[in-house]
Amino acid sequence: MDFKGANILSTRQFEKADIERVIEVAEELEPIAKKEQTSDLMKGKVLASLFYEASTRTRLSTETAMKRLGGEVITVIGEEYSSLKKGETLDDTGRIISCYADVMAMRHSEEGAVDKFADGATVPVINCGDGPGQHPTQALLDIFTIKKELGKLDGLTVAMSGDLKFGRTVHSLVYLLRHFDMKLVFIAPDQLKMPENIIKDLKNDGVEVEETADFTEGVKKADFFYATRVQQERFEDPSEYEKLKDVYVLTKKFVEDNNPDLVISHPLPRVGEITKDVDELKGAAYFRAAANGVAVRMALIALVTGVTGVLGVK
Amino acid sequence: MDFKGANILSTRQFEKADIERVIEVAEELEPIAKKEQTSDLMKGKVLASLFYEASTRTRLSTETAMKRLGGEVITVIGEEYSSLKKGETLDDTGRIISCYADVMAMRHSEEGAVDKFADGATVPVINCGDGPGQHPTQALLDIFTIKKELGKLDGLTVAMSGDLKFGRTVHSLVYLLRHFDMKLVFIAPDQLKMPENIIKDLKNDGVEVEETADFTEGVKKADFFYATRVQQERFEDPSEYEKLKDVYVLTKKFVEDNNPDLVISHPLPRVGEITKDVDELKGAAYFRAAANGVAVRMALIALVTGVTGVLGVK
Amino acid sequence: MDFKGANILSTRQFEKADIERVIEVAEELEPIAKKEQTSDLMKGKVLASLFYEASTRTRLSTETAMKRLGGEVITVIGEEYSSLKKGETLDDTGRIISCYADVMAMRHSEEGAVDKFADGATVPVINCGDGPGQHPTQALLDIFTIKKELGKLDGLTVAMSGDLKFGRTVHSLVYLLRHFDMKLVFIAPDQLKMPENIIKDLKNDGVEVEETADFTEGVKKADFFYATRVQQERFEDPSEYEKLKDVYVLTKKFVEDNNPDLVISHPLPRVGEITKDVDELKGAAYFRAAANGVAVRMALIALVTGVTGVLGVK
Repeated sequence: MDFKGANILSTRQFEKADIERVIEVAEELEPIAKKEQTSDLMKGKVLASLFYEASTRTRLSTETAMKRLGGEVITVIGEEYSSLKKGETLDDTGRIISCYADVMAMRHSEEGAVDKFADGATVPVINCGDGPGQHPTQALLDIFTIKKELGKLDGLTVAMSGDLKFGRTVHSLVYLLRHFDMKLVFIAPDQLKMPENIIKDLKNDGVEVEETADFTEGVKKADFFYATRVQQERFEDPSEYEKLKDVYVLTKKFVEDNNPDLVISHPLPRVGEITKDVDELKGAAYFRAAANGVAVRMALIALVTGVTGVLGVK
Repeated sequence: MDFKGANILSTRQFEKADIERVIEVAEELEPIAKKEQTSDLMKGKVLASLFYEASTRTRLSTETAMKRLGGEVITVIGEEYSSLKKGETLDDTGRIISCYADVMAMRHSEEGAVDKFADGATVPVINCGDGPGQHPTQALLDIFTIKKELGKLDGLTVAMSGDLKFGRTVHSLVYLLRHFDMKLVFIAPDQLKMPENIIKDLKNDGVEVEETADFTEGVKKADFFYATRVQQERFEDPSEYEKLKDVYVLTKKFVEDNNPDLVISHPLPRVGEITKDVDELKGAAYFRAAANGVAVRMALIALVTGVTGVLGVK
Repeated sequence: MDFKGANILSTRQFEKADIERVIEVAEELEPIAKKEQTSDLMKGKVLASLFYEASTRTRLSTETAMKRLGGEVITVIGEEYSSLKKGETLDDTGRIISCYADVMAMRHSEEGAVDKFADGATVPVINCGDGPGQHPTQALLDIFTIKKELGKLDGLTVAMSGDLKFGRTVHSLVYLLRHFDMKLVFIAPDQLKMPENIIKDLKNDGVEVEETADFTEGVKKADFFYATRVQQERFEDPSEYEKLKDVYVLTKKFVEDNNPDLVISHPLPRVGEITKDVDELKGAAYFRAAANGVAVRMALIALVTGVTGVLGVK
């Protein structure tokens, strides 16, 4: 993909070389994300940070990325965009805010809303999550985390557990992972299995996929384990939830007994899927992943605005 | 007017020379507003952006103006100002926030509220809309748009349609236009006619005014057409609204048939007054107007803080 | 205290030397707070401004402090932090936002919440008010105001009136004042007296304390008078409130008749405790106190991030 001027709407638009490019630029900008260096790369440029659906962590991470690159941010939070309330179409909104900003990051509760907004926009749009749809910046930070933690992307087994049926995060992530020589293990109860169409897409792309409901068995096989929340509200029968919720909990003892070298991540917030004592393990990567998010979002902002080249960024 | 230190509260305070001065500075700052140049004109200065009533477009435009001039912004949105809730008077609020900022932009749902706030303030205040009252920055961007689109302000016919009775935007705008050799055509149904006192003011100032309910006839005469929304809630009889709402709609075909050179603007958001296909006409100026808003707000900020002189601004 | 890396959670953590250090740095940064100089002291650094409970004045003051020092700010307002809503613990939140920011300022409606947040944080946290708990930045700006207005901190009589029972501000302040040779006069009706445990703490520290319900008598003795609001909702018997509310009102005439040299401050917003005509007195220090707040918050930010040393700051 030619990043300059591109919208980042879905992980499906990424080829292998695109992912490698994002990782390469993110690695270069990492010292700025980690507060070791300062930057004026985006000086004089403005990011519109449009979170029609609240997602404070993603918003703060994206705004921090822009600010640490020396750029400015204008922000809309929640349902506040008053012109939308008055009946403005999303593509008019996209066109107007393009008059103010050089790049726009948007989150919305409805699938497809960011695409409509991007239709009207005249500057690049980065999708920061559109309801049950896509969350490409999260997926890119997750694959960046795998690369940073394990030093490579090929020859790995990646296990995912929790709500694989509705989880936007895992749906976005697997469309990046498919480009690498990985085995994917999906750990979920029947009610929350990865959708058939995604499994089919992966197999068509030659990805080795294993599905299991057995948490221990699944985690044992993994080099990298990605936990998501099992949400009570997804179950019709509450007793079914009660049975499962304790099975899908990662504890320090469990890791030490079953897979001591395991690298563990989570899109956060965690509620109970990973106990606090896991934080003590050196494989606990979820807080490092939060920091990686700043570097990856810096890379995307720099790439779509085309300001790489300065600061040694190629 | 001596801009340095002045409050911008109403278009009635503007003499012809003041309007020309704002246009002149806005033209000078336009390359920064259009993202062609960067600026440090307002470096080290702080704008307080106080939108007690939501108006995201005006807020983002104003904040972008300050940020692209290299200044900083502190923001209050909606009903959040907690001290007002606790019973603080608006002039105390104005005095306190003056301790933080070098210039303040305020929007409020009540007419006169910005004036009260300005009474206590010790730094310049820019009114960004006070309920049914004034909206001077919108009016200034509209007259700037006329100048940019038609190359002049004298010898023009400007038509306005829609809700001329309650429309703050048109009420503010005509008090600027009166200073130039213009004919004004007000197109509105009886229920939404321009108020008598405004018509009287204009005639006293020697402005040629024509009133009509005939949309086609009115638009035909115009060099510049300014559409506003006909709001359903203004009609006691819903069938009356139903009859009118389709008459006051500008379509591409209508323009091509009746006045192909027409320059068209709108304060936005539009809901149905201008159909999407009008966007294809070269006279469709409403998105360019949104961009002009940044340049005009830059000019006002620079003028009232007295930092013109740097950057070649006279 | 070693300020670099420290959390500012309570005034009880301050030794006399710490208070003097904050005042010293605040005096040095005052020309920047007063808009007389600009600064790049915090360039490349990010403050997370987390106001889970609205407090616009404290928020704007803190954000202005960071911005005038050349730093950047990311903001969360109200109940918006979506991960907390999803059940994230405060210490996880503290740990994650530490990935984005170099320093964090937090306000929360629950006593102790800022401490929990600071437990997870890996960068310094400044408590900007935790419910009925502490408000150290307000107390530091108040003692800074006493020093600025009267030129010294020893040998003074400080009177406080109003709601001394529930007032977080006065509770925080007295734990700073106890380090100096001051007489404290607490003026309150029986229902709103300073809590016994605080009186005891002060006496143990050798502070001379006087309690009275007589407003005139109390104010007469003071060099510095600190008014707070008598809140109607604290009274079970409304007639009791009606009797008191007019007694605890400072007017210009009252000051001129009883104590013309009195220096007067208030945490603001005022509602009726100090009449508007008092603003004309040269001892009316409450708006100057609001400006002092920016300098004091600059000092705290500079001290805990350890960037003093630049700009001549020692």
